[in-house]
Amino acid sequence: MKAIQVVGYHEKPRQAEVPAPEVTGPFDVVVKIGGAGVCRTDLHILEGQWAEKSGVTLPYTIGHENAGWVHAAGGAVTNVAVGDKVIVHPLMTCGLCRACRSGDDVHCEQSQFPGIDTAGGYAEYLKTSARSVVKIDDSLEPADVAALADAGLTAYHAAAKAARTLRPGHRCVVIGAGGLGHIGIQVLKAITAADLIVVDRNPDAVKLATAIGADHGVVAGGDHVDEVLELTGGHGAETVLDFVGEGGATRDGVAMLRRAGDYHVVGYGENIDVPTIDIISTEINFIGNLVGSYNDLCELMVLAARGLVKLHTTKYPLEEFQAALDDLDAGRIRGRAILVP
Amino acid sequence: MKAIQVVGYHEKPRQAEVPAPEVTGPFDVVVKIGGAGVCRTDLHILEGQWAEKSGVTLPYTIGHENAGWVHAAGGAVTNVAVGDKVIVHPLMTCGLCRACRSGDDVHCEQSQFPGIDTAGGYAEYLKTSARSVVKIDDSLEPADVAALADAGLTAYHAAAKAARTLRPGHRCVVIGAGGLGHIGIQVLKAITAADLIVVDRNPDAVKLATAIGADHGVVAGGDHVDEVLELTGGHGAETVLDFVGEGGATRDGVAMLRRAGDYHVVGYGENIDVPTIDIISTEINFIGNLVGSYNDLCELMVLAARGLVKLHTTKYPLEEFQAALDDLDAGRIRGRAILVP
Amino acid sequence: MKAIQVVGYHEKPRQAEVPAPEVTGPFDVVVKIGGAGVCRTDLHILEGQWAEKSGVTLPYTIGHENAGWVHAAGGAVTNVAVGDKVIVHPLMTCGLCRACRSGDDVHCEQSQFPGIDTAGGYAEYLKTSARSVVKIDDSLEPADVAALADAGLTAYHAAAKAARTLRPGHRCVVIGAGGLGHIGIQVLKAITAADLIVVDRNPDAVKLATAIGADHGVVAGGDHVDEVLELTGGHGAETVLDFVGEGGATRDGVAMLRRAGDYHVVGYGENIDVPTIDIISTEINFIGNLVGSYNDLCELMVLAARGLVKLHTTKYPLEEFQAALDDLDAGRIRGRAILVP
Amino acid sequence: MKAIQVVGYHEKPRQAEVPAPEVTGPFDVVVKIGGAGVCRTDLHILEGQWAEKSGVTLPYTIGHENAGWVHAAGGAVTNVAVGDKVIVHPLMTCGLCRACRSGDDVHCEQSQFPGIDTAGGYAEYLKTSARSVVKIDDSLEPADVAALADAGLTAYHAAAKAARTLRPGHRCVVIGAGGLGHIGIQVLKAITAADLIVVDRNPDAVKLATAIGADHGVVAGGDHVDEVLELTGGHGAETVLDFVGEGGATRDGVAMLRRAGDYHVVGYGENIDVPTIDIISTEINFIGNLVGSYNDLCELMVLAARGLVKLHTTKYPLEEFQAALDDLDAGRIRGRAILVP
Repeated sequence: MKAIQVVGYHEKPRQAEVPAPEVTGPFDVVVKIGGAGVCRTDLHILEGQWAEKSGVTLPYTIGHENAGWVHAAGGAVTNVAVGDKVIVHPLMTCGLCRACRSGDDVHCEQSQFPGIDTAGGYAEYLKTSARSVVKIDDSLEPADVAALADAGLTAYHAAAKAARTLRPGHRCVVIGAGGLGHIGIQVLKAITAADLIVVDRNPDAVKLATAIGADHGVVAGGDHVDEVLELTGGHGAETVLDFVGEGGATRDGVAMLRRAGDYHVVGYGENIDVPTIDIISTEINFIGNLVGSYNDLCELMVLAARGLVKLHTTKYPLEEFQAALDDLDAGRIRGRAILVP
Repeated sequence: MKAIQVVGYHEKPRQAEVPAPEVTGPFDVVVKIGGAGVCRTDLHILEGQWAEKSGVTLPYTIGHENAGWVHAAGGAVTNVAVGDKVIVHPLMTCGLCRACRSGDDVHCEQSQFPGIDTAGGYAEYLKTSARSVVKIDDSLEPADVAALADAGLTAYHAAAKAARTLRPGHRCVVIGAGGLGHIGIQVLKAITAADLIVVDRNPDAVKLATAIGADHGVVAGGDHVDEVLELTGGHGAETVLDFVGEGGATRDGVAMLRRAGDYHVVGYGENIDVPTIDIISTEINFIGNLVGSYNDLCELMVLAARGLVKLHTTKYPLEEFQAALDDLDAGRIRGRAILVP
Repeated sequence: MKAIQVVGYHEKPRQAEVPAPEVTGPFDVVVKIGGAGVCRTDLHILEGQWAEKSGVTLPYTIGHENAGWVHAAGGAVTNVAVGDKVIVHPLMTCGLCRACRSGDDVHCEQSQFPGIDTAGGYAEYLKTSARSVVKIDDSLEPADVAALADAGLTAYHAAAKAARTLRPGHRCVVIGAGGLGHIGIQVLKAITAADLIVVDRNPDAVKLATAIGADHGVVAGGDHVDEVLELTGGHGAETVLDFVGEGGATRDGVAMLRRAGDYHVVGYGENIDVPTIDIISTEINFIGNLVGSYNDLCELMVLAARGLVKLHTTKYPLEEFQAALDDLDAGRIRGRAILVP
Repeated sequence: MKAIQVVGYHEKPRQAEVPAPEVTGPFDVVVKIGGAGVCRTDLHILEGQWAEKSGVTLPYTIGHENAGWVHAAGGAVTNVAVGDKVIVHPLMTCGLCRACRSGDDVHCEQSQFPGIDTAGGYAEYLKTSARSVVKIDDSLEPADVAALADAGLTAYHAAAKAARTLRPGHRCVVIGAGGLGHIGIQVLKAITAADLIVVDRNPDAVKLATAIGADHGVVAGGDHVDEVLELTGGHGAETVLDFVGEGGATRDGVAMLRRAGDYHVVGYGENIDVPTIDIISTEINFIGNLVGSYNDLCELMVLAARGLVKLHTTKYPLEEFQAALDDLDAGRIRGRAILVP
């Protein structure tokens, strides 16, 4: 089959002809790829930033945001059948460790990450496990939802975790209305009646945020902390979801947080650097957020099927992978680029 | 009545004769003091560290860890009766704001703090509110439990919050086996079956910790992070309770924390300074902890009545307040000093 | 002032001239009534069904669903000011018992219930407590929301409690799309993305339910259990909210419930009568629901201000109380009848 | 190998020579049995009570409370190794359905139950899955803990679920101090500081209960409801754990329950038959409890290793199965009978 492979770091990836994966174990699932998201992480992989961490042997096939159809399945697979439309959770997990047994499979003690440390989805077929495939609604197309498999899932996970304590009348500040924030806002609108205040440096992103449901938009132009405090009666917000995590976002975000509030860390780059006296005297919390669980992905697919979460995509034939990567690198893509075999 | 008052900062407090407080409102309660804890915060007040923050007018009576007997009560008071033994919650709260209405009265929007910003308990009588008095068991003596009203309550609050996620087999690291840590360990033993690992620089404190129930004691002498990792199978602990918060405790404590773990901040001094990439890739949380609520104090008094939480105290007649303050300042007190009128 | 009073059981109530209530305690609030809901409970009171339970002395003023403007307030009242638009929580609670201190004020150990056991709101003025008044948004009119103070609050409480475990894709069956069910459906739509299946005997009520957001409507005509099972893949729903509780509703409702599901009891009349073997082998729960707390009422008023919860009302001048009661008794009222002084 | 098989209903089981099970799939685990609990359910199976429900084909090997050593394991098994001491969770679960993915594997949509619907542990070897084996501490012996695999696990599950809302000072009534109740009391003592009130008809069982930690023992002799009400200040208990569920236990138990309390159903026999008006006016809950999850079993084994949960056992050589069954049937066994191959 055709596959796009990393052949060396600081080199362009190359299209290769490789053997199609086959079912060998009882829980194996081979997915015929309908769409593979082109993600900034793919650019980082090609630059070698993940080389040491992943320890993957070159050449290998990249692509970690995948969706398609079940092409073949092992004898013990009961959750999907050949022909089913599926989205692929980014991790392959063991199902045996304490984390897996608690539904918190993202913290699996021996997971694999196709597209990062084993063969991914820039290809015609992908081999994964029954534990990683989520059947999607007939109304959804794999190429339309593939990019929700990782970035969207992360946003869902954080927004859904935050939603557990958000009651009607609570204020939730969303910092960053880009890819993840865009999904996060839609999720919060779907499952809470909190007052959503979106903060972004980009006035267009703020406009888009209010168009999709944010109650207040604040352009981060210097007075944004004061503006948020004014919108929250001087108290700050019960919850801050920070999808940025760099460029001073955390300092500003903490200043927007109410006593006993939750600060959800999603974006990253800078340090959380806060005096312990401030943490205890206001009794605030910092909540880490990684990618979502298998169940989170199921729930996100329900929101997608209901039309409550939408994502703009630009599709490229698989062979035009280089154009997609170049367009992403140059900032020419609105929404997400998707490779379609 | 006799009262010990702050008459100027950087001066010694003085004993004065002041009018005894009286019930004027329907929810007022006047407590005959049975014991008033002498706390390091009292030393800080006398040094002027709280002058600006509290805005209190001098002279005023200090003492914020109080217990005694109900001497008089307003007409609307239903939770205690004259003659009842009571411990006094350190805050007087409004009962009307959202925080008070949620049982989270520590975040009351208009609380007062007797001994800090209004007349406290180094005196024969203290005026407080029905919302601040907790009836204690007949088996307890006010002078024995007074010091649990603030420091003990803080430790209970943090330990009880941590306990909600601690299951049998989970590991909980307690950093600091001093005043608060000592209470925290007893609370954790009473309400969890977690594996308790206590870390302190002082070998005697570690010994005492294991004597009162810690499963493992680790002297913080350089290898303590490795020792804790070894005790936790290399994974770190599900929960860290940090009663120190300075001198590098937070850096070490974070290194002892397992993926998806909770880091409870109680002690303070230094900054939490952690890369956001570390927070999200391990999905850890930092949980602030302030003093406990009224209900927390009720629960702590239950543990005290059952003999599950004990505190060593050294009693001084009220008139010998200066000796008590001096002994505290010089590190000559084991457990807590208590003034008894 | 004018007040409508119960003068005897099995008699019509009478309009009387009584002294207007005055502020006498520091937390007292006198509300100028803007609207008082006419409730089926008022009919029951007049029939004497509450005589023994309430122990109230006749004559007294009825009316327990009240809203208006703050007319006067005691010196300790900080949550509202004279002139504020408010809705009145049906209970006056002590603020001192364990339940009140936990935010669960509905279980207050010494509450009063204006309109039931003390003077209510079929009058020009009502005396209540600061703990019972919720400031409402400028966009809302007291007469439009008064009926949310009791029935609406009960529905909100149950729906919000159920919502805590409802994830996208979960199924929630609402039994009964009358007064309470109508509010419950709107609340569930506002704060969950669950799949809502509404069951009612009345085809018009089912039609209305789907018009306001229910995903599926089922007319209870004999095959309704099977229809719900078919809509839930044969498994039943994760949650059932039963606003009926009589006429076989509980037997049918339990048959619609999935393994490990929650059955919320709100309506009443018949018994929950289920073999313990069925309860344990499917591990289902039955959750009682009383009226909501003060905080629940605050949250419901947020939904009302956002236009997410609406109620149809028919207004009557206070003097025409008998017409309102007669119309209610005869089933001539769509939505709720409101008396306006 | 030797195995004890059901050869016909209403017949005695027979010892047979059958092929030892072998590993055929990657997640298979074969356990060399160290002990198999003899349970009342085994008597019921022999009487044919489970014939229709299980649909098992005779002859088959019974025994569903098993512990031993890992004898062989498939290639994908990572949680145990050959030679490990293990206890066997009673269910074999799929790991793929929503329940399994949520850590709630007891509600697996396609589980098997060795000893009930497939070959069990009255034998030298048992074939199970990696998902069902829990490694136990070196200090524990399989034959000593085997009986915790089902009855003990059920008691742990219910007690641990109840413990989540039990705060110091809360009252918990345990109805029934027999096999399950005995374990439940030990679990509650280990993980809560609630006030434990144990009610049983048998004075000896009550005595034993207080000996292992119950705070109050009440012999159910007619006045027991009043006695419990007196012990709870007339309010009833925050939680009732009912391990009996027949003979009027539920009626009495509900009468012992406080407003807003939780009634945990564990034992079974009669109906929960309570007016909905009582459920809503006191806002009580009925909580079903089935057997515990895999994680529950891990936690129970931690308590056992710490000596916090103990069980009296009487051991019989495997060949003497009939004596064990007869002794159980005749009520001659103190604690649990264990077959040791």
